[in-house]
Amino acid sequence: MAQVLYDFTAEPGNNELTVKEGETVTITNQNIGGGWIEAQNSRGEVGLVPEDYIEVRECGDDFSISSLSHPALFSLFWNTDPSGGSNNNWASNPEGTQTGKNAPDPWGSHGHPQAYQGPGAEDDEWDDDWDDMKSTGGYVESESGDSGAMQRGGAHATSMKISLNKFPGFSKSGPELYLLCKQFAKGKDKLPIYTGEVGPVWSYPESQLDCIVADPKKGSKMYGLKSYIEYQITPSNTNRPVNHRYKHFDWLYERLLDKFGSAIPIPSLPDKQVTGRFEEEFIKMRMERLQGWMTRMCRHPVVSSSEVFQLFLTYKDEKDWKMGKRKAEKDETVGVMIFSTIEPEAPDLDLIEVEQKCDQFSRFTKAMDDGVKEILTVGHEHWKRCTGPLPKEYQRIGKAFQNLSTVFTSSGYQGESTLTDALTAAGKTYEDIAQMVAEQPKKDLHFLMETNNEYKGLLGCFPDTIGVHKAAIDKVKEADKLVATSKIAPQDKVTMGKRASTMSYALQAEMNHFHSNRIYDYNRVMQLYLEEQVKFYETIAAKLRQAHSQFTTM
Amino acid sequence: MAQVLYDFTAEPGNNELTVKEGETVTITNQNIGGGWIEAQNSRGEVGLVPEDYIEVRECGDDFSISSLSHPALFSLFWNTDPSGGSNNNWASNPEGTQTGKNAPDPWGSHGHPQAYQGPGAEDDEWDDDWDDMKSTGGYVESESGDSGAMQRGGAHATSMKISLNKFPGFSKSGPELYLLCKQFAKGKDKLPIYTGEVGPVWSYPESQLDCIVADPKKGSKMYGLKSYIEYQITPSNTNRPVNHRYKHFDWLYERLLDKFGSAIPIPSLPDKQVTGRFEEEFIKMRMERLQGWMTRMCRHPVVSSSEVFQLFLTYKDEKDWKMGKRKAEKDETVGVMIFSTIEPEAPDLDLIEVEQKCDQFSRFTKAMDDGVKEILTVGHEHWKRCTGPLPKEYQRIGKAFQNLSTVFTSSGYQGESTLTDALTAAGKTYEDIAQMVAEQPKKDLHFLMETNNEYKGLLGCFPDTIGVHKAAIDKVKEADKLVATSKIAPQDKVTMGKRASTMSYALQAEMNHFHSNRIYDYNRVMQLYLEEQVKFYETIAAKLRQAHSQFTTM
Repeated sequence: MAQVLYDFTAEPGNNELTVKEGETVTITNQNIGGGWIEAQNSRGEVGLVPEDYIEVRECGDDFSISSLSHPALFSLFWNTDPSGGSNNNWASNPEGTQTGKNAPDPWGSHGHPQAYQGPGAEDDEWDDDWDDMKSTGGYVESESGDSGAMQRGGAHATSMKISLNKFPGFSKSGPELYLLCKQFAKGKDKLPIYTGEVGPVWSYPESQLDCIVADPKKGSKMYGLKSYIEYQITPSNTNRPVNHRYKHFDWLYERLLDKFGSAIPIPSLPDKQVTGRFEEEFIKMRMERLQGWMTRMCRHPVVSSSEVFQLFLTYKDEKDWKMGKRKAEKDETVGVMIFSTIEPEAPDLDLIEVEQKCDQFSRFTKAMDDGVKEILTVGHEHWKRCTGPLPKEYQRIGKAFQNLSTVFTSSGYQGESTLTDALTAAGKTYEDIAQMVAEQPKKDLHFLMETNNEYKGLLGCFPDTIGVHKAAIDKVKEADKLVATSKIAPQDKVTMGKRASTMSYALQAEMNHFHSNRIYDYNRVMQLYLEEQVKFYETIAAKLRQAHSQFTTM
Repeated sequence: MAQVLYDFTAEPGNNELTVKEGETVTITNQNIGGGWIEAQNSRGEVGLVPEDYIEVRECGDDFSISSLSHPALFSLFWNTDPSGGSNNNWASNPEGTQTGKNAPDPWGSHGHPQAYQGPGAEDDEWDDDWDDMKSTGGYVESESGDSGAMQRGGAHATSMKISLNKFPGFSKSGPELYLLCKQFAKGKDKLPIYTGEVGPVWSYPESQLDCIVADPKKGSKMYGLKSYIEYQITPSNTNRPVNHRYKHFDWLYERLLDKFGSAIPIPSLPDKQVTGRFEEEFIKMRMERLQGWMTRMCRHPVVSSSEVFQLFLTYKDEKDWKMGKRKAEKDETVGVMIFSTIEPEAPDLDLIEVEQKCDQFSRFTKAMDDGVKEILTVGHEHWKRCTGPLPKEYQRIGKAFQNLSTVFTSSGYQGESTLTDALTAAGKTYEDIAQMVAEQPKKDLHFLMETNNEYKGLLGCFPDTIGVHKAAIDKVKEADKLVATSKIAPQDKVTMGKRASTMSYALQAEMNHFHSNRIYDYNRVMQLYLEEQVKFYETIAAKLRQAHSQFTTM
């Protein structure tokens, strides 16, 4: 049994089910994938509904929030005692300001329903591990207590704006904090930019860092009242595993966003769970996406070599971690001040060139964002067809052949067993094909969608990153006026131009990093996709060839 | 431009278009196949409509029937002068009592809209060739003047009942005409039944007759006022072509039905054209189906060796044909009297065995009828998906890849032409696949559908053929009572039993003929279907393999 959280209108012919907010439905198949589950309404109609639109409940009981305040009830979740494990309860999110319009969608094609919680909620309970399982609700994997992360979600562009408002050097003064800074802090790690074959490039390490996210384990605290999932992360440099919970990833994300967000697009972590999900599948999916996020961060030469990122991957013990955390939180080279550590080896660029580059990147990322979203939309449709109507049709074809075979067997005519056996085999072959068709998207389309989804997230960061550069360019353009009104000294104007040039080198290095990763990622995912597609069609052809060989016209 | 003849409600998601009787639509694609055409309504919506629901008009002009009475207008049809050939006009059938409910459907899954015209219309104008093009309407290929054929159509069982009513020996007296006949006409050709491996079998000729129906040609009469299509039929025994029009086939059908219908199911000819159709496609389809019908008749040892069938295939000249026609029409060994020519070599069967066989065949043909209809329904659905939503989706996938390639090309980053070329090629491959998917049903599903459609027609004849046998069994069961009331002599009862046994042998021979043909036909059509399916999937796999090879991760 499950309750519908938002109105959802089925698209005709897509095997979808129209549901209304508050309606109760029965889950008939939770292994559809692609963000869909199959449900049946009270009229017996069966169809697909986005899984985020549905909240799974235990036995239809509406546990009220207050009824959950008793510790004994909490112990029913995540209890290490298996006898208590079956009694899960999923309550609706008491905090979300969700509407049907903004309800979540697989691959986040709509906005995220979770509203921005406001900066006031930030850092609350940070050192309180209690937050992994909110005391006010029955999330299996809520981990949403550190509500700093609540402000992010599907629509990344929006969330980035919110995040930028928090930049110490940005919301108050914009890029001028960097452009007009009298003296940079000394002794900071410098970020050189070299001139490579493709233009400005970051300094890349000799061997690329990588890590493996694996082995999610349930942990519990407070005598089982409190539970969480801990992932094991093994970096390639130390090969020594460390453990982290989702909220630690989220902390890392916040630090990276604060520190590098003006220069480097830092993609969001995989979405938090907002409503009931099927536990195992959810954990697997989250792990896969955390792996994707970590791999991307590891691949970035600036991010991967940063102190905070290394702390996350290689802390030695709890004390080391706590100390490193405090140090990272006190880091003042954040926001636009990251540019103060950047040192391009090439001569300064003039403002026109800086502006041209900026506009070019802006156009490209916008165009690619559109292209990626188109693939996601088309892939989404295709997923539905392949898991819904198409296999049903192949199954019916298979059944029709087998039925005819049964009829033929009843003829009483001698010597037609070759035909009836062949017809039965052909029918079974089409049933096999039905199953193959339904399972194929998980083998190929899934990865195409995941890669494009990742790029959608990454591209969503660019408007804000580029926005910082545009604001800097505008500021430099104003410099003459500022000099005329004696707001800055003539020398300051020269400094501003040089610093805008530095920012441009950083952006170019970042774009070149983006392009080389993009080329690798799309080559790789297309290879994988087409390889699996080839296998799929070849297997079908082989099965049909086998079925064909059984018929004979003597 | 075309006018909608019947209401049609689109099934959601099947790429269909809902249309209302009297609505005007624009034909956007007439090459869909499977009995569908693509049309656009006045609101710009495009979708599939059964082609029989639509009447194509010339330039939206409503020629009134009276306006067609001028000979000059008639000369616009079928004119041997090519300059006049483009000015076709299609008027609605002025005689049909069509309703939306009974509107025609591809593969005749609904009833035929043409109502039974009543026996009064029969034989009118028979020797008048004028009827090929009705003077009251603008049929391209009406040929419906010989309205004896009008009483047949989609629902064969119904039409057979009507036909049986016309049997000289049946409608008046049922099978007793044969069962109680004092003396059979002498010197008739005898039809022996032998005992083969599978039981009673007809006498099969050493070499099987076959014929080729080809080369449809337009002919015209009355200075172009009157036109028709003539087909060339070349039988394998003489290898000398003869020409026949549809109405000659229809005459042959009538003779075969009268003569053999009680013993042998004679399938209907392909449906007549009731409404506007696209000329070339229609002629091709009719020819294909006439070929199928003739092949089936040629394969039948009793039918193919009959005088009337041989006349049709091998008449020497017009005089020969006319004389043979008259002789065939005067044949008195028709209806149940056909059994008087049948001579089984095996000993008489007792009535229980006769009844068991009859019931067995009845059950089998009913079950097979259901099985065949299921395949037609499923195939019909599959046809729509393969020609509608599925290729559209592959096309969108192809376009999405190509769009992304275009975006990538605009990046300004060096050395990604390998990726962009590969992405473009992958996109084009999916566009190719889209086209392949849309065209595939014509290569394989078409033949599966045609074969099953033929069997549906054939199976539709069995209830009446079996009905004659059941009536005979009932009559023999009454024999004791008839003897007791002195209505028949005791010897007559013995005769009736013997003759029921003869009928049973005929039915068994016919069933064995049916079974052996069925086994051959289904083996053959499944071979063809699966062979084409294998080719289809292998071609897709090869195309994708080629696309795959262009991507590289170095």
